[in-house]
Amino acid sequence: MKSIALAMLALLLLSPAAMAGSDAEAIAQASRSWEKAYNAGDGAAVAALYTADGALLPPGGARVDGRQAIETFWTGAIASGLANIKLATVELEFAGDTAIEVGRLAGTVPAEGGGTNAVAGKFIVAWKRGDDGTWRLHRDIWNLGN
Amino acid sequence: MKSIALAMLALLLLSPAAMAGSDAEAIAQASRSWEKAYNAGDGAAVAALYTADGALLPPGGARVDGRQAIETFWTGAIASGLANIKLATVELEFAGDTAIEVGRLAGTVPAEGGGTNAVAGKFIVAWKRGDDGTWRLHRDIWNLGN
Repeated sequence: MKSIALAMLALLLLSPAAMAGSDAEAIAQASRSWEKAYNAGDGAAVAALYTADGALLPPGGARVDGRQAIETFWTGAIASGLANIKLATVELEFAGDTAIEVGRLAGTVPAEGGGTNAVAGKFIVAWKRGDDGTWRLHRDIWNLGN
Repeated sequence: MKSIALAMLALLLLSPAAMAGSDAEAIAQASRSWEKAYNAGDGAAVAALYTADGALLPPGGARVDGRQAIETFWTGAIASGLANIKLATVELEFAGDTAIEVGRLAGTVPAEGGGTNAVAGKFIVAWKRGDDGTWRLHRDIWNLGN
């Protein structure tokens, strides 16, 4: 009984802020997984971090709907030479099973004549927590300039 | 007493779906106000539709924070000749006092040698419902391509 009481107390002590902290940590880990998968050239692993009905809204192109199309998109970006992507969270706000992240991105593109040029940009990602408790990217829009 | 009971009944009949409809209508009206203000060349009226700590994440430039800077930004865009803006909601999802809108934009820019060229793009706006019940644009990111 004592252990049950302690477990219940521990549960009660989980304030909404503490739970948001845990969610924020989960999203931070998913972002690190995104970077790791992308920078390893694994478009399928990047796409797996999105919801099944996830969508990209890329600059200069049409909306990309669904995990298969998302994999094709990121595989193409990797092939184009966009590399060394780093993502940084600037703001993260939770509303139920949704989180809105405002962030910054940095990376490199091949330079004319060899070497690379730095690129920088900003993004908004709408995250969704699935029935399995996993946070996934649901809507992803970005542009260049910082 | 009868009128109070009827008023309470009317309140109870407002289902969450009906309230979301009302919120969606409020956001649609705010979008129409945005178009009307912008296309009339009134940057201050556009800026007034954002939260006090609203932010723009424009393509090709730095983040723009706060209503005053937002007014300056849109006033500059109007002066540049970007005109005839039309906004269309593609998705609108509510989570408490936040709403996430995915949309499309269209407009015109001056063409070399006279006339105009069409531009098209997409956006995500995070809306916030303030203490006064008014929905305002809180975060606004867009890019070109459609």
